[in-house]
Amino acid sequence: MRIIVIGATGTIGTAVADELERRHEVVRVSRRGSTGGSAGGSAGGSAGDSVPADLRDTASIDALLDRAGRSGGVDAVVCCAASGALTPLDDPSDAAFWTGLDGKLIGQVNLVRHALGRLRDGGSVTLTSGRFAEPVPGSSMGHLVNAGLEAFVRAAAVELPRGLRLNAVSPGWVRETLVSLGMDPADGVPAAEVARVYAQAVEGSFTGRTLAVRAVTRGESPAS
Amino acid sequence: MRIIVIGATGTIGTAVADELERRHEVVRVSRRGSTGGSAGGSAGGSAGDSVPADLRDTASIDALLDRAGRSGGVDAVVCCAASGALTPLDDPSDAAFWTGLDGKLIGQVNLVRHALGRLRDGGSVTLTSGRFAEPVPGSSMGHLVNAGLEAFVRAAAVELPRGLRLNAVSPGWVRETLVSLGMDPADGVPAAEVARVYAQAVEGSFTGRTLAVRAVTRGESPAS
Repeated sequence: MRIIVIGATGTIGTAVADELERRHEVVRVSRRGSTGGSAGGSAGGSAGDSVPADLRDTASIDALLDRAGRSGGVDAVVCCAASGALTPLDDPSDAAFWTGLDGKLIGQVNLVRHALGRLRDGGSVTLTSGRFAEPVPGSSMGHLVNAGLEAFVRAAAVELPRGLRLNAVSPGWVRETLVSLGMDPADGVPAAEVARVYAQAVEGSFTGRTLAVRAVTRGESPAS
Repeated sequence: MRIIVIGATGTIGTAVADELERRHEVVRVSRRGSTGGSAGGSAGGSAGDSVPADLRDTASIDALLDRAGRSGGVDAVVCCAASGALTPLDDPSDAAFWTGLDGKLIGQVNLVRHALGRLRDGGSVTLTSGRFAEPVPGSSMGHLVNAGLEAFVRAAAVELPRGLRLNAVSPGWVRETLVSLGMDPADGVPAAEVARVYAQAVEGSFTGRTLAVRAVTRGESPAS
């Protein structure tokens, strides 16, 4: 398969691109693009070359898909570029409060919509959700975004033409991220293991599901 | 209590305002405002006078709350003004696809944020969610909005100061709406019964919950 990985210079994105590259052709994409091992994304992690595209800019997503299409077509798009910060409910700025909506929710939904007509028959889109154990102050936007995204994935999947599939991965804490933050790595899942869940979504035949990484790594079946 | 009901000229909003007015002082609000029984909102239903405010315009919400605050304070805000239409996933216009986000999700969340500093201690906000039995084509935005809103309510409730409470009601089909559409009224719940669920949210002591009307009317406990 020919697979576009967006956010390919982040911790998860690098691992996903590496995992998929064992069996497929991978086009690595990051917000600013990068060359020769210099990390160019918003998160850490080494990477090879990546081409630039910004999830918040549908024109740049269209250009990316069209360029990839002209040079042989695309079978799958994986988006690992979704980050979010805590936002206090009483932030006096409406614009600041809603910033979290742009990339992770609106950007990823628009990626699906704009990929619809450009993917090969039977292709797939895999998005990145997330989760909190419990509501904590500042998490209302994160909860809104993750729940909205997962509900969108479930509902939009029934509407996809030509055997296209749509899923999301909810990665939880990644071990490498916890280490970099000085937190207990035992609470996290290694990025390479997270990446294998993304690969299941790309290489499997299911659709409309959100795969929760923690459940999968314990040998349970993925969340539906 | 002094209670603002937004969307008070719609089918549900009229019933909610009527129900609450038996025991409380109610300020009826609709998008365009209306006087003397002429229906002035987007949905049908007769109504008394209503003052104008638009959920999509935070300045108009601020002005409404401040005006009500100067004349004695506000204990509760109930929003029944949330409507949504089916939107095909492949709508070529990004703006058209995202229209459903503005009032029902962003508008209602902003209503909570802007009411935070203006409600009396122990006051409440009650929003309107919704639901689909199953995903159907065109429902992806509706699913996104309802799930996002309910997750927001659950998470934001832990962040409210001064004993403020936040809940949502998921009204399902209303009998009067089904009748007006020529559909089987037996599948709907009378608006007056739906209104009593809104009143439970206003007069009860729980927070962070979405009350599903169908479950309540069968005598089960409301969804948490």
